[in-house]
Amino acid sequence: MTNDKKAVKLHEENGGKIAVQGKVSLESREDLALAYTPGVAAACREIADNPSRVYDLTTKANMVAVVTDGSAVLGLGDIGPLAALPVMEGKAAIFKRFGGVDAFPICLDTQDTEEIIATIKAISPGFGGINLEDIAAPRCFEIEQRLQKELDIPVMHDDQHGTAIVVLAGLINATKLADKDLNACYIVVNGVGSAGVAIMKLIKAYAPDASITALDSKGIICDQRTDLNSSKKELIDENLVIAHKNGDLMTAVKDADIFLGVSKGNVLNAEHIAQMNDKSIVFAMANPDPEILPDVAEKAGVYIMATGRSDFANQINNSLVFPGLFAGMLKIQKTKKLQFSQEIYIAAAKSVAKCVQNPTREQIIPDPFDENVPQAIISAIMKHV
Amino acid sequence: MTNDKKAVKLHEENGGKIAVQGKVSLESREDLALAYTPGVAAACREIADNPSRVYDLTTKANMVAVVTDGSAVLGLGDIGPLAALPVMEGKAAIFKRFGGVDAFPICLDTQDTEEIIATIKAISPGFGGINLEDIAAPRCFEIEQRLQKELDIPVMHDDQHGTAIVVLAGLINATKLADKDLNACYIVVNGVGSAGVAIMKLIKAYAPDASITALDSKGIICDQRTDLNSSKKELIDENLVIAHKNGDLMTAVKDADIFLGVSKGNVLNAEHIAQMNDKSIVFAMANPDPEILPDVAEKAGVYIMATGRSDFANQINNSLVFPGLFAGMLKIQKTKKLQFSQEIYIAAAKSVAKCVQNPTREQIIPDPFDENVPQAIISAIMKHV
Repeated sequence: MTNDKKAVKLHEENGGKIAVQGKVSLESREDLALAYTPGVAAACREIADNPSRVYDLTTKANMVAVVTDGSAVLGLGDIGPLAALPVMEGKAAIFKRFGGVDAFPICLDTQDTEEIIATIKAISPGFGGINLEDIAAPRCFEIEQRLQKELDIPVMHDDQHGTAIVVLAGLINATKLADKDLNACYIVVNGVGSAGVAIMKLIKAYAPDASITALDSKGIICDQRTDLNSSKKELIDENLVIAHKNGDLMTAVKDADIFLGVSKGNVLNAEHIAQMNDKSIVFAMANPDPEILPDVAEKAGVYIMATGRSDFANQINNSLVFPGLFAGMLKIQKTKKLQFSQEIYIAAAKSVAKCVQNPTREQIIPDPFDENVPQAIISAIMKHV
Repeated sequence: MTNDKKAVKLHEENGGKIAVQGKVSLESREDLALAYTPGVAAACREIADNPSRVYDLTTKANMVAVVTDGSAVLGLGDIGPLAALPVMEGKAAIFKRFGGVDAFPICLDTQDTEEIIATIKAISPGFGGINLEDIAAPRCFEIEQRLQKELDIPVMHDDQHGTAIVVLAGLINATKLADKDLNACYIVVNGVGSAGVAIMKLIKAYAPDASITALDSKGIICDQRTDLNSSKKELIDENLVIAHKNGDLMTAVKDADIFLGVSKGNVLNAEHIAQMNDKSIVFAMANPDPEILPDVAEKAGVYIMATGRSDFANQINNSLVFPGLFAGMLKIQKTKKLQFSQEIYIAAAKSVAKCVQNPTREQIIPDPFDENVPQAIISAIMKHV
């Protein structure tokens, strides 16, 4: 049986991947009288009198909404909210398995920015956090910014920051091994969707003197281009990328220390690698086909190689990060209304990097099943209270 | 410890009453590769190509949203969405325990009819059904009607129809015991909120020749009144109630066969009961204090007495009905887009009544833990495919 058929069978046999379970006994009239009417009224009244009690008496304290509009799902693109549901359910299952967080998929039947914002605000009372997922750029940037301002619970677009945190964690260990200073590195970022933009912002927040060149499908993002949308122009306006460099990928990678691919498969070849600096670092994260396969890159002399895939060494995957990240934020909401920030993302990235005790070229980031990772991220966040 | 304190403790110790659980193994890289990326993409593509496959491959098939705006919660009234959450969680736990249905609480931070409708439509893709809950009248009527028309999944306001079904089930057995024909009965309904209106509509759908007088806090609803809102006027316009009878509760109960109370405690006394017909039937369903206590009513000569409380005989509670009702509707959605209707409510009420094999004055409806009830309702609904 192919893996695709196995995956479909798994979904069909289980009727999806999550369940809602009661966690109190409902076996006697007394049970019902405490968990439901009339006893439940006492819990309702406590919250009506003192709203912060909702964090003690309900599941809000540990509940995250995984919200998508189905517009940028995996590598599949705009497949809509129904077809996006298996991804959101998978994410909810991973939230519980790795972070102990209750998470519930919300698939929206709208791709209008204002409607998405209004809907998430309307359903927010029951949730302790909002994980935005697989929402296309540039809409995802405004939705996240607005909700972070307008809600009193943490909101994060995981495709941006979850990915950026794992990339930074990997780069911290990779540059150490290659004896490079990230602040002195020249970095090429291929792909300026939500992940690419967040990666650049996080790198510059961590290492302000790093030089970055970014490319979209038409070439290098630079001030000579007249076809740039608002989020691409911002890269230049905010000095995230070198403003004047023009050209194609071959121009970009000349003397690069680091290549970060969040674009599509097979765009990088041995010739590109040969143009890069000594001890080059390549994260080829396109899924399912990376920008370049590890064996090709290694023959061409790459020093450290990572992909998004579980069947190669050094898997860069945000599932390593998001469970611990939300678990940590949820733990402190009752006492402090902390919102996600670059400081928190950097603290998380450092803590993930440290989970690898002896980094090697084949292990720059922790294994996806490393149970120390969520706890390390939670501890890093708790220091921000 | 008082029951109120016990109830608060139960909520606090468990951190609320529901949890989201993964139901597939996530213990190996292969597990992750099937349940999440890259394998999950195969399930997404199947749904993108054939949307009805969402009922095979996801939790939509068995997932109900329990949606409130917090405006009419239990007897507490407009306590808002945060304070309503314990009730919705309790309902979700009961859905699973008694109907095997996954249900999730959605507490809305808006009480605007159009915003409520827009929000529920926006989040509908992930759900197989919508249970509206504790939304104030008359807003609840329009929201339910509009959503039933505009969505392709079953939508029901349980405060209306869940209650109406249990009342009709109880009346079927009570009138049998009292040797009365419901079509020849004169019925007083005290309280014209969502439950009262739905009860009258369902009785008239089942027994069109029954005569009904309804009262609000100001007296009998009749054509001489100039202070009636739209939903109360409709009771007259649609011939649900006697149009010309005017007066107070004492006038209303004269020669009544049946009194149905969905109003507030202690409004009925022995004198009222004495005015009623022989073999009078009284359902005093106000919570926590019924319209009249059973011992008072029995001394005054009532023949059959029911309340909403678990500590007296004959508890009229919609939790007996809603789990089986949605379980039945969900079972057939993949093959037929059946919407809730009076026919289905009547079929459900008949099936609930039949679950009591030998009705007595002390047992006109099944015990809340009678496991035959959900299955009986499911079978009754399956006949509508």
